[in-house]
Amino acid sequence: MIVPRPTLDTAPAELGVRSFALSSDGARLRLLDQRLLPLQEQWLELDDIESVARAIETLAVRGAPAIGCVAALGLAVAARGFADEPAAFRAAATAALERLARTRPTAVNLFVALAQLREVLQSAPPSTDAASLRAALLQRAQQHVDDDLRMCLAIGAHGAPLLPDRGAVLTHCNAGALATAGYGTALGVIRRAIADGKQLRVFADETRPVLQGARLTAWELAKDGIDVTVIADDMAGALMARGDVVAAIVGADRIARNGDVANKIGTYTVAVLCKHHGIPLYVAAPSTTVDLSIASGAEITIEQRDGDEVRSHGGSCMTPPAIPVWNPAFDVTPAALVTAIVTERGVFAPHELARGLGG
Amino acid sequence: MIVPRPTLDTAPAELGVRSFALSSDGARLRLLDQRLLPLQEQWLELDDIESVARAIETLAVRGAPAIGCVAALGLAVAARGFADEPAAFRAAATAALERLARTRPTAVNLFVALAQLREVLQSAPPSTDAASLRAALLQRAQQHVDDDLRMCLAIGAHGAPLLPDRGAVLTHCNAGALATAGYGTALGVIRRAIADGKQLRVFADETRPVLQGARLTAWELAKDGIDVTVIADDMAGALMARGDVVAAIVGADRIARNGDVANKIGTYTVAVLCKHHGIPLYVAAPSTTVDLSIASGAEITIEQRDGDEVRSHGGSCMTPPAIPVWNPAFDVTPAALVTAIVTERGVFAPHELARGLGG
Repeated sequence: MIVPRPTLDTAPAELGVRSFALSSDGARLRLLDQRLLPLQEQWLELDDIESVARAIETLAVRGAPAIGCVAALGLAVAARGFADEPAAFRAAATAALERLARTRPTAVNLFVALAQLREVLQSAPPSTDAASLRAALLQRAQQHVDDDLRMCLAIGAHGAPLLPDRGAVLTHCNAGALATAGYGTALGVIRRAIADGKQLRVFADETRPVLQGARLTAWELAKDGIDVTVIADDMAGALMARGDVVAAIVGADRIARNGDVANKIGTYTVAVLCKHHGIPLYVAAPSTTVDLSIASGAEITIEQRDGDEVRSHGGSCMTPPAIPVWNPAFDVTPAALVTAIVTERGVFAPHELARGLGG
Repeated sequence: MIVPRPTLDTAPAELGVRSFALSSDGARLRLLDQRLLPLQEQWLELDDIESVARAIETLAVRGAPAIGCVAALGLAVAARGFADEPAAFRAAATAALERLARTRPTAVNLFVALAQLREVLQSAPPSTDAASLRAALLQRAQQHVDDDLRMCLAIGAHGAPLLPDRGAVLTHCNAGALATAGYGTALGVIRRAIADGKQLRVFADETRPVLQGARLTAWELAKDGIDVTVIADDMAGALMARGDVVAAIVGADRIARNGDVANKIGTYTVAVLCKHHGIPLYVAAPSTTVDLSIASGAEITIEQRDGDEVRSHGGSCMTPPAIPVWNPAFDVTPAALVTAIVTERGVFAPHELARGLGG
């Protein structure tokens, strides 16, 4: 299936891969277990807060926007089981918000979603009945999901014209439908360009050590009928030297005021390769990723992760067991290596970003 | 153990890791099974031609120089079991040479070694007794090994002065003791620089898809007490951006007349990163690697290997099972990105190589 050209009215089901949905009776949250991808497509059925919290903690869902959406919908579904007495309902909802807030400490989207639901409770009169509160929470959760999806569609619409009419596009990690409410950010730009009729194929860096490219990007693009080829990360240079890579596009975890981009480790290597070969590098991310409080990438702390991620392949240790390993989760690509940053509010040169977003 | 500063008189046992040796009674060839590294150090004991041939075919030994050495010593050991009658001895030896020639078709070193042993047989009078032939074959085989080791030591001696007195050196793949008679080419330069008192640490690219860096380079350097840290290939850029990589050094599979270097896939990516960061890139290889018959790297055919190497990690498929994969075994680094080529005959700028080697 090639993703159709989407509009704000496009039915969600027509947008290609989605990693979560309400069951048809609204009683359960169905969640694609990303831990088992790409070899198994198993859907979890969640209807209580502890199951939702555990799914987030154990990475059945990952990707900051997707986590926020799943937390919101998960609370709305679980609220069907809360007591009908208004005070008891509110106590259960508050406990649920607190439980969900303890799942993953870093991503901002989770806390934005929880704050939206808390606001629903706080703005309703104390006497509001449980049925009304349930309906209001569900509506707010669905709006959160719709907003995220709309943001991805807008990023896709703004970014698609940047890509050439034909050729190969390289991407790194997974900034796709699986990490968002759907469609994706970097992969949303690719999806939209293809929907617009561009003849693009995608090369996906496998993205060691956690293999988000090999496992997730490859799976979701193939699922949507997009021509995708996986390469080992060290092949990116040789691929560009062949001459058929026309652009690279990646997501971002955090963008500084000067346009420096923190993203999955390996992004900087791709950026240097792009510069050497005269290939444009685009970063696609919602404007909420831009942190105007930090002047440059030098202020971004890079998380160092467990060395066993590098020592291991497919669960097997492949190095001498205690060998030292360097395993930063992210790297910083200086603004000078970024051609443009694509947000839902438009496309900006890195140095114009702060002014463009009103910072 | 830090490898001592070697000379031509250094006892082989003092040179650090070796992957093969004759047993003390000379009756068997002991071979470190590289398929099991780094998790098991298991030595095969070989005393007949079929075992030696199978060890080469099944990659218990790999690395073109090491294969040549093992074939030569293996034939010398197996000759102890050949019939004593001179004509029968020669028939068995000829059959053995033919069997070994059928093991791996590509590496030139194997055929050089076999030609040397054939010359021993052909230059001896027909009446030469079996004991004399056995002794002559053994002597020639040992000379082949000694020559290879001496070449590595010479490469180390020529290359070591190029490395700074302190800092981190990046390497890719395994151009080390395990691939040669000992000491290695690229890793021989590092060993010698450390033996000379330089304070160097090594970063080893894991070198996807086959992980020669994670499995072999990490193992042999750690074994020799050299400070080695493994990184995923996509981390090389971020590592260089930190500023502590003072040089990169790699081996070569084939070097064209103009200095273009074919080496393990990923070498070109390292080369571009070096260029961007102003870090010198050295290539260490015996002069026999230089193919004066080809004008440039454009004439080098790149082997495409099975996509399952990329799909798999530690024996497990990590991508959608049938996903397309691009898996070239080598890439070509243009001479312009190579700072110098270190051979046993000296150090050459890439464009001076052909003249320097008398081509």
